Amino acid sequence: MSFPVDVVVMAAGKGTRMKSQLPKVLHRLGGRALAQHVIDTAARLSARSVVVITGHGAERVEAGLHAPAGGTQLKFVRQAPQLGTGHAVQQAAPVLPDDGVTLVLSGDVPLTRPETLQALLDLCAGERMALLTLDMPDPTGYGRIVRSADGSVQAIVEHKDASEAQRAITEIYSGIMAVPTRLLKGWLARLDNQNAQGEYYLTDVVKFAVGDGLSVQAHRIADAVQVAGVNSPLQLAELERAHQRRVAEALMEQGVRLADPARLDVRGALVCGQDVEIDVNCVFDGQVSLADGVRIGANCVIANAVIEAGAVIHPFTHIDGEKLGVSVGPGSLIGPFARLRPGARLGAEVHIGNFVEVKNSTLAAGAKANHLAYLGDATVGERVNYGAGSITANYDGANKHRTVIEADVHVGSNCVLVAPVTLGAGGTVGGGSTITKDTPPGSLAIARGKQVTLPNWQRPAKKKP
Amino acid sequence: MSFPVDVVVMAAGKGTRMKSQLPKVLHRLGGRALAQHVIDTAARLSARSVVVITGHGAERVEAGLHAPAGGTQLKFVRQAPQLGTGHAVQQAAPVLPDDGVTLVLSGDVPLTRPETLQALLDLCAGERMALLTLDMPDPTGYGRIVRSADGSVQAIVEHKDASEAQRAITEIYSGIMAVPTRLLKGWLARLDNQNAQGEYYLTDVVKFAVGDGLSVQAHRIADAVQVAGVNSPLQLAELERAHQRRVAEALMEQGVRLADPARLDVRGALVCGQDVEIDVNCVFDGQVSLADGVRIGANCVIANAVIEAGAVIHPFTHIDGEKLGVSVGPGSLIGPFARLRPGARLGAEVHIGNFVEVKNSTLAAGAKANHLAYLGDATVGERVNYGAGSITANYDGANKHRTVIEADVHVGSNCVLVAPVTLGAGGTVGGGSTITKDTPPGSLAIARGKQVTLPNWQRPAKKKP
Amino acid sequence: MSFPVDVVVMAAGKGTRMKSQLPKVLHRLGGRALAQHVIDTAARLSARSVVVITGHGAERVEAGLHAPAGGTQLKFVRQAPQLGTGHAVQQAAPVLPDDGVTLVLSGDVPLTRPETLQALLDLCAGERMALLTLDMPDPTGYGRIVRSADGSVQAIVEHKDASEAQRAITEIYSGIMAVPTRLLKGWLARLDNQNAQGEYYLTDVVKFAVGDGLSVQAHRIADAVQVAGVNSPLQLAELERAHQRRVAEALMEQGVRLADPARLDVRGALVCGQDVEIDVNCVFDGQVSLADGVRIGANCVIANAVIEAGAVIHPFTHIDGEKLGVSVGPGSLIGPFARLRPGARLGAEVHIGNFVEVKNSTLAAGAKANHLAYLGDATVGERVNYGAGSITANYDGANKHRTVIEADVHVGSNCVLVAPVTLGAGGTVGGGSTITKDTPPGSLAIARGKQVTLPNWQRPAKKKP
Repeated sequence: MSFPVDVVVMAAGKGTRMKSQLPKVLHRLGGRALAQHVIDTAARLSARSVVVITGHGAERVEAGLHAPAGGTQLKFVRQAPQLGTGHAVQQAAPVLPDDGVTLVLSGDVPLTRPETLQALLDLCAGERMALLTLDMPDPTGYGRIVRSADGSVQAIVEHKDASEAQRAITEIYSGIMAVPTRLLKGWLARLDNQNAQGEYYLTDVVKFAVGDGLSVQAHRIADAVQVAGVNSPLQLAELERAHQRRVAEALMEQGVRLADPARLDVRGALVCGQDVEIDVNCVFDGQVSLADGVRIGANCVIANAVIEAGAVIHPFTHIDGEKLGVSVGPGSLIGPFARLRPGARLGAEVHIGNFVEVKNSTLAAGAKANHLAYLGDATVGERVNYGAGSITANYDGANKHRTVIEADVHVGSNCVLVAPVTLGAGGTVGGGSTITKDTPPGSLAIARGKQVTLPNWQRPAKKKP
Repeated sequence: MSFPVDVVVMAAGKGTRMKSQLPKVLHRLGGRALAQHVIDTAARLSARSVVVITGHGAERVEAGLHAPAGGTQLKFVRQAPQLGTGHAVQQAAPVLPDDGVTLVLSGDVPLTRPETLQALLDLCAGERMALLTLDMPDPTGYGRIVRSADGSVQAIVEHKDASEAQRAITEIYSGIMAVPTRLLKGWLARLDNQNAQGEYYLTDVVKFAVGDGLSVQAHRIADAVQVAGVNSPLQLAELERAHQRRVAEALMEQGVRLADPARLDVRGALVCGQDVEIDVNCVFDGQVSLADGVRIGANCVIANAVIEAGAVIHPFTHIDGEKLGVSVGPGSLIGPFARLRPGARLGAEVHIGNFVEVKNSTLAAGAKANHLAYLGDATVGERVNYGAGSITANYDGANKHRTVIEADVHVGSNCVLVAPVTLGAGGTVGGGSTITKDTPPGSLAIARGKQVTLPNWQRPAKKKP
Repeated sequence: MSFPVDVVVMAAGKGTRMKSQLPKVLHRLGGRALAQHVIDTAARLSARSVVVITGHGAERVEAGLHAPAGGTQLKFVRQAPQLGTGHAVQQAAPVLPDDGVTLVLSGDVPLTRPETLQALLDLCAGERMALLTLDMPDPTGYGRIVRSADGSVQAIVEHKDASEAQRAITEIYSGIMAVPTRLLKGWLARLDNQNAQGEYYLTDVVKFAVGDGLSVQAHRIADAVQVAGVNSPLQLAELERAHQRRVAEALMEQGVRLADPARLDVRGALVCGQDVEIDVNCVFDGQVSLADGVRIGANCVIANAVIEAGAVIHPFTHIDGEKLGVSVGPGSLIGPFARLRPGARLGAEVHIGNFVEVKNSTLAAGAKANHLAYLGDATVGERVNYGAGSITANYDGANKHRTVIEADVHVGSNCVLVAPVTLGAGGTVGGGSTITKDTPPGSLAIARGKQVTLPNWQRPAKKKP
């Protein structure tokens, strides 16, 4: 059974209860726009196309979403004015080829699992209407799924129209359906807006399908999160936690040890090797990979970084590679209170200690900057010891320059290295020196004032107020 | 229906199970003393007066509470010795005017909603006795509310005295009542202590009211948190979380986006504009306002601060304005690992980066201090670039002095600016300089030793142990 | 009733679902190996010996566990190959003296309470077989405990063999039993492996005991956590949280105030005095003691430290004493963003502020290092003020040297103190100085370049790209 699938994503709504300037479907969950989750799910179904129906904030929505990985094509169709869900899908009809199945999803329902939708498509089989339904302990207020003796769907009955027996039904419609496009188009043409709201309702096609004798099937699930929509910041937060719980469980399933699954936030893709441990309250963003045996301490924020095997990231470490990335070599020790910025490339067994910032710099194996230091636009050789409080003055107020510290150099405390400057291999810089000229290999460079002592010095006295 | 309301707050108990030197009602929840919550709730009911009955640690309790905003008057009455709840209210009787209604609250029950108490007062209507009752799934051990056919309260029956039928009742008394003061006084005079504990029980007035033919009504709620008392650190922690959950829900209701509502702590008043985002694990204290579009990163601690529109506070930022306050201008970028202390006043688009501390300093628009720096008692002009590792030496061991850095100055790395000192506009300070004298506008100031290089220098060898 | 207890701990399994190189029983919970929890529990029962049966990763397991405090002897017995639970205990038989009771525990079931096991041993009484059983709401799949009319255990019936009536039983076997060793040995000899898995099952001894007419008793509990095993990272995380919840409740029971019991992690022994407050998201490791009135701010990580009365640890403080320990004197103020490393010994009312690191240094009463500083291998006298950005250059590239700063010295900003060096009492060091020679008491020492000003200096222009 194989048929092309075209996905329609409803994304025209305003989302008034979000109380935000941002269109609802662009609100982020796990770091991605709500509607992007839906688009990416469609791609995992190998959909032929995804048609996003935009309306409120259409330009911003269209700019804020991108085509998924793989061959799924992304199209946008505008709905203006917004005259209901049926009207929305009517706008998409011209770009839906007749030979496929249309899967109708909602841009504010981000957590439907691909395997659930695949089961729905399997039920549709290219020829039936298939509805995704939810078993709900308390369905008060929702339209009920009335089934025939053979299990096929007979009708969706609104709560207010339901009989006592129908109200006892706990199966409700989720808003998600799969239907052969050719048939769908015929029914869309028959929709009317003769109702209290004056809207065209997509659910009316179910009635037409039953009337036309088409088999209408339902795929029933019990996991409400999969069909939950976001209409308010509270609902967004609830789904965010549900999403993070899923991510945490998937990581643990692979063997990652989490000190507290409820205190992990992954906003991009976190790839972990074997025997990775992540302590409480860490946040990962963008593309992060943690190789075998990596340990992440409590309260770390890590984005766009590659951490190699056996590296230990101590608590309170902030790493963000942004577009350039950050790499941390095997066996390195980072933090606590360290910050690695874009372009930090650390070799094996590098130590970056407390209150140290590294930006756009390469540190070779065994280099150390353990205390209160800044390394920016620097190339640091093997085994260099970069002293406490030392700074690369890489910015002259207009341009950035490079500092080169060759292997085995020992830079003292509170030095300033005024770039461009090169410290030759094996050299030493005395503490408190401001180095403006290159130093030869093996030399000692000092630039400091002579120590003068004034005996019996009278320190200023506290002024009377 | 309008009548004066006088609130009696029971606050004489010891709170042995708290195992603390601090009187129980002074323990803090959401940053405020338990009894202060009750006083502030009374003020929201526009009570005429609040009479706090103190006993254990009376002086400390009286010093630790303050009159609420608005016109509600705060009075203290001492109960010594403590002979029961009825005895407590007897002490208050002399300061309760006859023309009002007395609302009896407990100083260790902090989370009763004002609207609940207003409903109770409406039921009282200035002429009936009104009891706040709780519907409790398992009421074992509690006194049950026995109602007449007409719904009025007939009696409160202790668990041990209850019949089988009465034990099936799930409505219990919360300890909160509203009663016309004139009637209350008569009943208080009739209390006795002929019971096992030898105490005067306030609940006995219910019996007198029924006996006197007064209508006794009950306002029943289901939300146990509203009538939950604090008797132990565990209960305190439970109510703290319930309170924080309420705060989080109220913020989300206004449109604030919270990455995790269970990981937000607000201990004072947090006022938010539109499209504010708060990441996980943030703590707010005192008066904090976040204008439109402000984003707060993970793990921030922010107190007594005004953050203007569009500012971004990166993770691990600590801001505490204490009494002087802190202000962060629109579009500013703060952190990670930044600390803003009292009197930090940042203009528009100021950047304060990692390991930077700012205290009692004004930074004009566009000023930057991005790395490992200290700005104390400084006035910093527009577009100043304050170098990594630079320090204002504002304290001579006895007095604090001011540093003035005029617009467009570029301060190099690891400089010391010895206050009082002024750097003229557009000037430059070379890296590693200690500046003790004022510098003219447009100048380059340098104060550093000449670089000397000793070739073939022999670094000390590792001593044999 | 007194009889020797020998504990057998099953620790030979592989733990495939952990997906780890580490043998399952060495995975840590609350900072201790799973099997170490079981060993330590045995010690709290005053067991004569604990016999750990190792198999998969035997060497690593044996190296990773240690004898508990007290007189309990720790022995290891290897099981190779692994032929089932009965076979495992058979390996232990030679080291189990006949005069005792054998208590069979599992190395991956870490949270059984000692009082539960004591109750089981009391039931055994040196002469009966006693099984620990669990009342389980949904026991589907588990073997049921079938009891006689007199309450004694008749059989453990596997789910698949159970009758409808037996399936209604909610009591299941936990895997934990106490049995007189002399009898156990007889039954172990009768075990066979005539079953689908070809394994020797320890549970078969129950059948033999009943057959031999021995009284088999069951001690039934309802708290599933006590008998829950760890087979996957998810289960490990669940038990970690259950353990931390227990720890938090025990601390609150003693009077410790926790801002959020769900956000506390204690991995060693945390001992608290009266009126200790711990804010959200703190992690404690190793031996930590907090004296009366100590307050720990949000997001602190504290290990192996003694914090004396009234000290305040501000948010984002990292303390780790490792083997040397850290001590913080009474009334001291530490943080935010401070780091105390091994050998930091702070006297009374010491202040360590933001971005300050202290290692292997003694600070006498009233000493202050408030901003961006490093103190390593230093002895700091009373009331010393150690300036912002100042560094002890304690490492010459080969050896560590000591810095002595006598009482009342004032060290300016951004100084370097090149050790070994002594600053005499009451002296002052000018800001920006690198001090290489001892300074006399009461002197002012300065080592800096003379300030030179070049008027009308042209700053470098931005290069065209």
